[in-house]
Amino acid sequence: MPDPDRSGGHFLRLDQLHGSLADPAMASMNFLNEVAIRFPDAISFAAGRPTEDFFDIADVHRNLDVFVDHLCRERSLTVEEARRTVLQYGRTKGIIHDLVARQLAVDEGIHVPHESVVVTVGCQEAMFLVLRALRSDPQDIVLAVSPTYVGLAGAARLVDMPVRPVQGGHRGVDLDDLRTQVARARRAGLRPRALYVIPDVANPTGISLDVDTRHELLRVAAAEDLLILEDNAYGVFAGEQRLPSLKTLDSDRRVVRLGSFAKTVLPGARVGYVVADQEVRDHGVGVSLLADHLSTIKSMLTVNTSPLAQAVVGGALLTHGHSLLTANRRESDVYRRNLSLMRAGLERHLAPFADRVSWNTPSGGFFLTLTVPFKADDALLERSAEEYGVLWTPMSHFYTGDGGIHQIRLSFSQGTPESIETGLGRLASLIGACC
Amino acid sequence: MPDPDRSGGHFLRLDQLHGSLADPAMASMNFLNEVAIRFPDAISFAAGRPTEDFFDIADVHRNLDVFVDHLCRERSLTVEEARRTVLQYGRTKGIIHDLVARQLAVDEGIHVPHESVVVTVGCQEAMFLVLRALRSDPQDIVLAVSPTYVGLAGAARLVDMPVRPVQGGHRGVDLDDLRTQVARARRAGLRPRALYVIPDVANPTGISLDVDTRHELLRVAAAEDLLILEDNAYGVFAGEQRLPSLKTLDSDRRVVRLGSFAKTVLPGARVGYVVADQEVRDHGVGVSLLADHLSTIKSMLTVNTSPLAQAVVGGALLTHGHSLLTANRRESDVYRRNLSLMRAGLERHLAPFADRVSWNTPSGGFFLTLTVPFKADDALLERSAEEYGVLWTPMSHFYTGDGGIHQIRLSFSQGTPESIETGLGRLASLIGACC
Repeated sequence: MPDPDRSGGHFLRLDQLHGSLADPAMASMNFLNEVAIRFPDAISFAAGRPTEDFFDIADVHRNLDVFVDHLCRERSLTVEEARRTVLQYGRTKGIIHDLVARQLAVDEGIHVPHESVVVTVGCQEAMFLVLRALRSDPQDIVLAVSPTYVGLAGAARLVDMPVRPVQGGHRGVDLDDLRTQVARARRAGLRPRALYVIPDVANPTGISLDVDTRHELLRVAAAEDLLILEDNAYGVFAGEQRLPSLKTLDSDRRVVRLGSFAKTVLPGARVGYVVADQEVRDHGVGVSLLADHLSTIKSMLTVNTSPLAQAVVGGALLTHGHSLLTANRRESDVYRRNLSLMRAGLERHLAPFADRVSWNTPSGGFFLTLTVPFKADDALLERSAEEYGVLWTPMSHFYTGDGGIHQIRLSFSQGTPESIETGLGRLASLIGACC
Repeated sequence: MPDPDRSGGHFLRLDQLHGSLADPAMASMNFLNEVAIRFPDAISFAAGRPTEDFFDIADVHRNLDVFVDHLCRERSLTVEEARRTVLQYGRTKGIIHDLVARQLAVDEGIHVPHESVVVTVGCQEAMFLVLRALRSDPQDIVLAVSPTYVGLAGAARLVDMPVRPVQGGHRGVDLDDLRTQVARARRAGLRPRALYVIPDVANPTGISLDVDTRHELLRVAAAEDLLILEDNAYGVFAGEQRLPSLKTLDSDRRVVRLGSFAKTVLPGARVGYVVADQEVRDHGVGVSLLADHLSTIKSMLTVNTSPLAQAVVGGALLTHGHSLLTANRRESDVYRRNLSLMRAGLERHLAPFADRVSWNTPSGGFFLTLTVPFKADDALLERSAEEYGVLWTPMSHFYTGDGGIHQIRLSFSQGTPESIETGLGRLASLIGACC
């Protein structure tokens, strides 16, 4: 670190750098990371990372070879061409777009042209591409179901696009509030372009939209001329009775689908995608796909997604018949086991406070919401880490403004039966001290 | 492709998407790609891609294993921790930042703290991060030596940051023009934040700055309070007498170094970096590194660079004692041979037009500039591809406004002795028809 007292020399001023860097939300995210680093021995219900139980470097080697072999056998490339596809600069829209489209067809009944898929550097870049395209002037805003995954707010901040919250409520999205917010924004001279929503076992709440709400949401989107940005990072783990995704139900190309292979194949590949089969018209003259415009933005941002990393993901898709449901049987079992341990453990450990605390019962996913009668803020998290040895996430981090102060996000994707049991005991002690 | 006559249904309007998408520069880049695709059998002096002569999937496997082994042996990680480092979500600033810093020390005598390195998704993301940080309000602009690598203009377009050209001239940067442009911008109420320059065998011209110009440029930057954005993608291939990089000479932390491993290790990894050891002061209270702020922006853009791809690059650095000069002996020989074939071939084939055409003699790199007495525009390129079977790049694509119309960029990184000989013969026929 530079010495703050160092005299002279060149320096930059924070107030002359982009506004996102002085955003309080940034300091707040840094705080969460820092707490986790300062208390490495605490049991964590904080991180939303996938299980590492089945991580294997040998799989990486095998998947790479499977993909190269596929290029030679099924795409009839020469060995030299296959090598070039994986090792040279590549197509901006990606080299596994066809495999992604097949996975969506196999697992979700989504049928889109291969050309509508852009492979991205994780879902985060996908969000950035879409928001950069939609934010054409200062009146453009995006709506987001609140509480909201922080990555959406970050991407929006980079293009100076305001995010206006829409209440999630118990159904996952409050459609009356959606209409109200759209009307309010329009009265203020703003142009709401899209609604961001995670319909299945959402981050951070664990809530899923029921089927009627999905249909109704699509009708409201059409009536209000909004795009839906569907983030479906956890849908594969939504549980026994999976519901049709918004893109599956989308008959009018209202839905831009954002996806990630971080939870379903490998976080270390940093591969995600966006499906954007919307038409773009140029003064009624030309027609193109929104995906092509996202690709143009990508060419100015990251040029292309590492073909090597794509190959590893592609090999995994090929190995499992293009099904992430099949590919994640073992992982799904871990998450299901952990969710059931969480429920039973919460019942048991929190029984003394049954009249004062409550929690929801997601059908699957990585997260659940615990509601408490005291302020679950950063100060309490710090005390929880220091005195009780347990980490969690204050739900307030996922709200713009002051929501979620009595709620806690509990992640259960990485625990073992022992750590979950011990962690919930510690959490109960904290709650006992606060109730 | 959607049917343009399809009635009804939802669509977006191009004029309601971000301005970058209607930029004529985009159409112009698309034209270049399209010509290459339409004439696959033409001999290409157009693409600036590295040679594929030594591409080997086995190297990827080996480099990955070398890096994992390094984590266990030299960083004393357990096998589980090493696996997590490469396969799980990772540190935003990267997992090979220390190896990048060592490479810069070994090859270039650049000594920077590891913490000042941010590993990025290629050099393109590095440019975006820096421009996003520097563009805090509409008065902020960036200067760029003209002709300019198109990636810089693209990244600037995404943050709506104007790029003002500074004449390159024969020395690679015209320092009088730099002072003039800074003064002119300031008079117009603008704030020039930085100058983008490729000091070694530049893309597109092949020109290198001499040592005096480098020193003088740093003095002007200090006097005018500008950052220098040094892009050094080709420095390793600059030839026998390599000159000190701008960052090597930088005693006042004026230089932000942008780098890429696309040409020196593997394009398919999509790994680059930025070195930003500048101090950032927050109202005189806190001091931080610019690298930390770039990392914050990255966390909102791509979260982290594929650790898997970084591992492959890291393994290559470890294998070659952290020296890209050592790692690229065979590749350097190819580029040197091709440059010498180009010079000899141009002498021979263009002898009949010696009074009307000229070309520069770069010390190395991938590109040289050919000056002709006729308009070398897109229309001529199309004719060249169709009638003569040879591709090249109109230099005008690298200018804002109307520069470079009599110049051609010739790339020689991918040719063979045979293709260079045949290609130059075809080029001479075209020139003969135009002169």
